[in-house]
Amino acid sequence: MNYFSSDFKLGILGGGQLGKMMLTDTRKFDIQTYVLDPSNDAPCKIGSNVFVQGSLMDFDTVYNFGKQVDVLTFEIEHVNVEALEKLESEGIKVYPSPKTLKQIQNKGTQKDFYNANNIPTAPYTRFESLTALQEAVAAGQITIPFVWKSTEGGYDGNGVKVIRNSESFNGLPDVQCIAETMIPFKNELAVIVARNPKGEIKTYPVVEMEFHPEANQVEYVICPARIDDAVAQKAREIALNVSEAFNHVGLLAVEMFQTADDEILVNEVAPRPHNSGHYSIEASYTSQFEQHLRAILDLPLGNTDSKVAGIMVNLVGAEGYSGNVVYENIEKIMAQDGVTPHIYGKKQTRPFRKMGHVTIVNEDIAVARKIAEEVKNSIRVISIQ
Amino acid sequence: MNYFSSDFKLGILGGGQLGKMMLTDTRKFDIQTYVLDPSNDAPCKIGSNVFVQGSLMDFDTVYNFGKQVDVLTFEIEHVNVEALEKLESEGIKVYPSPKTLKQIQNKGTQKDFYNANNIPTAPYTRFESLTALQEAVAAGQITIPFVWKSTEGGYDGNGVKVIRNSESFNGLPDVQCIAETMIPFKNELAVIVARNPKGEIKTYPVVEMEFHPEANQVEYVICPARIDDAVAQKAREIALNVSEAFNHVGLLAVEMFQTADDEILVNEVAPRPHNSGHYSIEASYTSQFEQHLRAILDLPLGNTDSKVAGIMVNLVGAEGYSGNVVYENIEKIMAQDGVTPHIYGKKQTRPFRKMGHVTIVNEDIAVARKIAEEVKNSIRVISIQ
Repeated sequence: MNYFSSDFKLGILGGGQLGKMMLTDTRKFDIQTYVLDPSNDAPCKIGSNVFVQGSLMDFDTVYNFGKQVDVLTFEIEHVNVEALEKLESEGIKVYPSPKTLKQIQNKGTQKDFYNANNIPTAPYTRFESLTALQEAVAAGQITIPFVWKSTEGGYDGNGVKVIRNSESFNGLPDVQCIAETMIPFKNELAVIVARNPKGEIKTYPVVEMEFHPEANQVEYVICPARIDDAVAQKAREIALNVSEAFNHVGLLAVEMFQTADDEILVNEVAPRPHNSGHYSIEASYTSQFEQHLRAILDLPLGNTDSKVAGIMVNLVGAEGYSGNVVYENIEKIMAQDGVTPHIYGKKQTRPFRKMGHVTIVNEDIAVARKIAEEVKNSIRVISIQ
Repeated sequence: MNYFSSDFKLGILGGGQLGKMMLTDTRKFDIQTYVLDPSNDAPCKIGSNVFVQGSLMDFDTVYNFGKQVDVLTFEIEHVNVEALEKLESEGIKVYPSPKTLKQIQNKGTQKDFYNANNIPTAPYTRFESLTALQEAVAAGQITIPFVWKSTEGGYDGNGVKVIRNSESFNGLPDVQCIAETMIPFKNELAVIVARNPKGEIKTYPVVEMEFHPEANQVEYVICPARIDDAVAQKAREIALNVSEAFNHVGLLAVEMFQTADDEILVNEVAPRPHNSGHYSIEASYTSQFEQHLRAILDLPLGNTDSKVAGIMVNLVGAEGYSGNVVYENIEKIMAQDGVTPHIYGKKQTRPFRKMGHVTIVNEDIAVARKIAEEVKNSIRVISIQ
């Protein structure tokens, strides 16, 4: 297949920041792209060859969009899977496959899949509704505290809540959910796995994540994770097992807990480029976005090693500010060594909205960590009054 | 000044591959761009916010384009300087300035400038026409062999020829030119200097260039140059002197000869991102394209050090092929360690046309050099029959 400067067309469902960063690499390779997104103001409107405004959940919209391209991928899981199945049955290559997506879209199904495939994960119970869960708690079948997760539609900390008492239920939607045992963990880790249709498979180094305590969003992603080699090795092996169990094509970001006993438990996966891999743009031989393209186009996978240590800081909207965005002190952080801001291009900020990220690279991870903290303490995503 | 996700507009004259690679970074920073190029098929048509088709040499076209933006830069020197001067006089920031551009556009003026500023350069004589030069040769005032250079319009080896006998004059245009003494040199080197309006200034490491003997185009660019530290230090100092003499803003690529006696002679400069700096996308902490933006926007300059060694191979059209381009064996080279192709997006190839480049990065420069040669021997830019 000739992808470069040719008539080949890659379709991307979703035109947000992940799509935008993927477009950097489609442009680098001069691969034609079609992007579908509901917002006419989406980050991918610029940089794609053809931008189509439309719903990702509407069967006809997704189907008609997909019929125009040769390979179809997505940057968000909330898409119409039935349309993907029909497209695949009609010969369009859809990567990751609708089968993989269906196994992942529902967190209950995802957890069942881990159990069926002997992949270590925290114990859980599925419930058809919040009401059913509350009844189980009342009946003493589920013990507080535990973690509530809605099985569908969760994103960036939405759809996840620690239930500490009966008041914690207030405000939760009455939807299908799971109750998961709380795991006392030392670290949250992630490993990105790339796999192409030929079956070539590679893992990125283990990254370590620090979460913002309130917003439940990642605050720092640190690569390599500052953990024992043996633990890192185990995490990469488990991520490989997960990837092989799903038999997916493209990237699979595997989020994991490192328990107090250095056990590794799989938390959840995302079948696409992932926030935990943004550091790779500056730090890795092959960025996760280029790797995703290589994988879904059945090209040879690139080197997943790092050139230098990398730390990523998410730029989220400051509390108390909504409106036209301003990046306060961005010039100050750009004066620091090895600092690269990525601005996603969303005009409007609001509290905790992901507006961009900053990567800090350095040969010395301790230096990078120090600069990352200065970055974190300097830059603020606010709005013009 | 607020550049990020704001109403600020950056104008770029020229929409070729240099502009395209600059757009990668304007997108990363979400800076609005306007691009002017004569071809409706230019690489920058995608990735810019507003693309305008029009002549870069036409006063009105350039002037009217420039009036729409806040800062104006260029990726090619062949632009209407009078329009830039008028725009500058009316308050548009033009970087590099028309003054710098005028000193550089004409190679005779450029050489005079070096002499006036005590910058070492090969001896030369200016002539108003080829006829005048031929008369000087006939009169014994200029001794064969020497290097003929047209003072204007030269690019990628066009406008430069070694005159070995009277037949060498055949086919040369009867234009203003210089006759330059042939320098027996060990190496062709280049140093990119970045300078912002505040006067902050940084040099990139010295790179070493190997030219294709026939096409007079760069075949490999190697960073760092495999030369003595003292020579490298001298080359960087001379490049700094050149930059300070021009008082330019933006990037200045300074091409130099290292003579048999380790003298450094300045050959010529380009006031923009340059082929000799493409390696920086993968190898440097700050790519030359991001650095150019930082410089012209008066942002702090980024770290010019390398993370790893980098070698660039130009992808030029193979002899004997013209038409719709195909990159033969591109999948083969992508299977090699640390190899990244950049495809500029020109649909039509022709012999020696610059169609893209490949960067090879590795911790070990000797390994990178070996892979670069395999890349060079594998990939071919041909056309579909």
